[in-house]
Amino acid sequence: MAILQPIINIAEILVTKNVTDAIISPGSRNAPLTIALARHPQINALSVSDERSAAFIAMGMAQVKNKPVAICCTSGSAAYNYAPAVAEAFFQEIPLIILTADRPTEWIHQHDGQTIYQENIYGKHVKASYQVGADYSHSDARWHIERVMNEAINTANTFPKGPVHINIPLREPFYPSAEEQVVFERPRNIRQHSAKASLSQETWEELLSQIEDYSKVMVIAGQDAINPEVNQALQGLQEEFGFVVVGDLIANTKGDFIANHDLYLGQIDESYAPELLITFGKSVISKSLKQFIRKHKPEAHWHVQSSTHVIDTYQSLTDIVSIAPEDFFKELFESLDMRAYKMGDEEKSFAYQEQWFNLERKSSRYIHQVLRDSDTWNEFSTYYKVMENIPAGSQLHLANSMAVRYANYLHLPNINEVEVFANRGTSGIDGCVSTAVGAALATDAQVYLLVGDVAFFYDRNALWNNFLPSNLTIILENNSGGGIFRMIDGPSQQPELEPFFETAQKMTAKLTAEESNMEYLSATNFEQFKNILTTIPQNSNRARLFEIHTNSVENTAFFKKFKTNFIV
Amino acid sequence: MAILQPIINIAEILVTKNVTDAIISPGSRNAPLTIALARHPQINALSVSDERSAAFIAMGMAQVKNKPVAICCTSGSAAYNYAPAVAEAFFQEIPLIILTADRPTEWIHQHDGQTIYQENIYGKHVKASYQVGADYSHSDARWHIERVMNEAINTANTFPKGPVHINIPLREPFYPSAEEQVVFERPRNIRQHSAKASLSQETWEELLSQIEDYSKVMVIAGQDAINPEVNQALQGLQEEFGFVVVGDLIANTKGDFIANHDLYLGQIDESYAPELLITFGKSVISKSLKQFIRKHKPEAHWHVQSSTHVIDTYQSLTDIVSIAPEDFFKELFESLDMRAYKMGDEEKSFAYQEQWFNLERKSSRYIHQVLRDSDTWNEFSTYYKVMENIPAGSQLHLANSMAVRYANYLHLPNINEVEVFANRGTSGIDGCVSTAVGAALATDAQVYLLVGDVAFFYDRNALWNNFLPSNLTIILENNSGGGIFRMIDGPSQQPELEPFFETAQKMTAKLTAEESNMEYLSATNFEQFKNILTTIPQNSNRARLFEIHTNSVENTAFFKKFKTNFIV
Repeated sequence: MAILQPIINIAEILVTKNVTDAIISPGSRNAPLTIALARHPQINALSVSDERSAAFIAMGMAQVKNKPVAICCTSGSAAYNYAPAVAEAFFQEIPLIILTADRPTEWIHQHDGQTIYQENIYGKHVKASYQVGADYSHSDARWHIERVMNEAINTANTFPKGPVHINIPLREPFYPSAEEQVVFERPRNIRQHSAKASLSQETWEELLSQIEDYSKVMVIAGQDAINPEVNQALQGLQEEFGFVVVGDLIANTKGDFIANHDLYLGQIDESYAPELLITFGKSVISKSLKQFIRKHKPEAHWHVQSSTHVIDTYQSLTDIVSIAPEDFFKELFESLDMRAYKMGDEEKSFAYQEQWFNLERKSSRYIHQVLRDSDTWNEFSTYYKVMENIPAGSQLHLANSMAVRYANYLHLPNINEVEVFANRGTSGIDGCVSTAVGAALATDAQVYLLVGDVAFFYDRNALWNNFLPSNLTIILENNSGGGIFRMIDGPSQQPELEPFFETAQKMTAKLTAEESNMEYLSATNFEQFKNILTTIPQNSNRARLFEIHTNSVENTAFFKKFKTNFIV
Repeated sequence: MAILQPIINIAEILVTKNVTDAIISPGSRNAPLTIALARHPQINALSVSDERSAAFIAMGMAQVKNKPVAICCTSGSAAYNYAPAVAEAFFQEIPLIILTADRPTEWIHQHDGQTIYQENIYGKHVKASYQVGADYSHSDARWHIERVMNEAINTANTFPKGPVHINIPLREPFYPSAEEQVVFERPRNIRQHSAKASLSQETWEELLSQIEDYSKVMVIAGQDAINPEVNQALQGLQEEFGFVVVGDLIANTKGDFIANHDLYLGQIDESYAPELLITFGKSVISKSLKQFIRKHKPEAHWHVQSSTHVIDTYQSLTDIVSIAPEDFFKELFESLDMRAYKMGDEEKSFAYQEQWFNLERKSSRYIHQVLRDSDTWNEFSTYYKVMENIPAGSQLHLANSMAVRYANYLHLPNINEVEVFANRGTSGIDGCVSTAVGAALATDAQVYLLVGDVAFFYDRNALWNNFLPSNLTIILENNSGGGIFRMIDGPSQQPELEPFFETAQKMTAKLTAEESNMEYLSATNFEQFKNILTTIPQNSNRARLFEIHTNSVENTAFFKKFKTNFIV
């Protein structure tokens, strides 16, 4: 085994750099890595057979822990099954250390099993991709692996964070003899001392002098983790300077901000449009918000982000500000407060803000009125009641495609105490359940997943493992197919609606729950639903699955009425 | 919709070129393609939600029909879920037309959902990759799509066949209005008239003059479909010229050839090694066969294949012969028969062949003796009995990883009338069930899948669709984990065996069968097993799942004894 010592040391380098979780998928080619990861006393290693699910579980863990998680698989198509999660992690900027075992390069395409072209297999969806040699006896080869692992982990951890791939060819033998001790050597830790980005005095003054031209300033928060410093600064900017702060549920802007915009943005005119738009974070769920700003372009648009990549979601970007959002908004608030600069016209600013708050109040009343005492049995009403019962301090995961859309209409007060997650990097339905499983493994908080039936069954291998955590509750809204296609106008008018868009499916999750030893409740009416609602906030000693059955036609009718009956 | 007419025409081009099957995964971005494929009267379109399974189902169909099947998905990670099947199809040389809808290029990485880097996403695992524009109004854009589709389908169909990818950016609106008629225009069909490859008289004479130097000639058949012409020529070469013909089960060499080699190759000396090796087809299962030839290299090794790519499985290749195997072996047989050339020493040739036949007879007797009346309840014995009961004329699919290995020891006489398939392009466990589902959809024959529990549950979404064919029978050998790791020496001696290699799993398929409305039988002993055996050859009006429960420790003990007790 000594010849594979540099491979064994990978586990030690990970630990040295504080990567202490690994999801391993079984295989023979990756056996030396498996042994190293599983045997290292400071690594928490778990085995997951389906690599697609394994990578999403790791991503869910990494997101909650805010540090990289390692994933490790054998050669061949195993590596490709990681790809959906790798792309999601890349666009969500979640660090992953992807360790794929490979056959030595000379064996590619030689009709000798389990060998594909693994080098650079994730294309542009990793921050960096490394290929090492297959022979580890020369000291330069050891140096190479040590150096690559250092760079890879440093890169994954550097803002914007993200996945990195190390492809590791291995020759037989893969296993130490039974008597052999696996010894971890102390490899070098090449530390990356990242500088803290800050703007020069001149840049600040230039930005601040611009602000004097504008009275209507809007901040749109994209997807991000809860950031109390950002929230506090935004609250200050709103209260003292008349800023309008808009945040989807996944922006985790906790405060009295604009949140019901999805309901009314289609109805408002350009008087609501900002002159200066400031954005930060990642994607925005609300399509109507994006369309509104693209239609009524601001005079200036500043985007706060660390890279030079031009992300111009609103087709109006004028300035990229490369510092951390918390630093930017704190400094902006303090500068407006202390320095000579001020907003264009303070009165106008607050009038602008009041316009938005009026809509927000009116829509809030409407939402609660319609949904609180709704007596029609339909999906959207059950979302409202489920969300009302999510306890403070827990995590809420929203699956694509309808769950995240429904929930974005429902910024209920209790959600201000709940962190909200969704796979909006690529917006796929392929790993929503696994991501929630990973999150639950990484936190002591209660983790709730709201998911539709197609996304649930697509990723049901998330539940096929030996460590389903008891703090996981899945609330499955089963409408027997892809209900989203009935919601949107185009497909609902086509003869292909049922067979090709909705793709009706008849399964219920009862048997899946039973197989995975989960607590299971189901409801087909309000009476049964009450039982689920009472149980939601309680703790449990095993993972839970609550299934709510509704009818897609009725759901569509109710939700359409809900949207059209609100008149600005 | 008229602006999307070139997209609508894609369906017509497919049909013109005899691509008449499409597996569609639901999405909005691919709606124009979905409508075109679903509405075309000559296309058989099916909807499958999980893209990973969808692509393997299409591959299974394409393999049986021996013509391309189209797959069509929405933008984002959907395309990545196709990748495992694309890689398998590439290495197995199965044609697929991959149609991925995309957002227009300018929207990539703009924090606007369901957008990844789709161009060239399958790397080297497609024969060709095309990117078209997003605007279809200019006549050159129509010309581009028409031309690209022609080239793509021609390429997929040209030997060696394989998958091709067309990435299709689309702008809204995706849907025709309810009144609008979808009209298929008649696009150009650019036909590829491929020449038939044949060797010159000089080349033939050079090859034949080489044969005069050798007395020990071996043919090794790699994975291929049943080819009666090849089999007949090989039979002739064996009978009249003393050739030794070796074929794994997946080579589908039907005849009295060498087939039990996996059992004894570890024990024989170089007197069994060929002087001239002739190979054709794709991969070989038997690791001991590959190792034997690599150790005892032939003086010459001819590989019959169409491309210039050097596939040197045995590290001894001297000649690549680029004509079809049936042409090669027929011509070789006739030339040896008619021309002046002859083998080196005829007597020596037949003595060499007799050496092999001796082993083959002895091992056959042994295999039947041990397994026919085996009274220990173990996996390998049940494989024997299951395979004995596969009726002539049916298809046998062997999943990776143990199923295909066990079965390769069991060339029972009835299997000479059965075509055998396995995903040995990449040897992954990720799509074995879906591939069998696709095959069953494409044939009227009975399709039997032999699969272990890890491969089965990994790909159980294969059963999550609305058209499970009644000619499908799955025989699931459930040993509660990755039994293969207990079989091989390395991992079985490690403390990680159970948690990280075997990765024990407790599920049975009973509930999965119930959910999918499949006929279900199970056995935990010989008495119950009899019932399964009687049922196997019968026809059924719905898909069937027979589950056989065995114990991994006992399976390993039995199989090891089976192998070591045979002494050459």
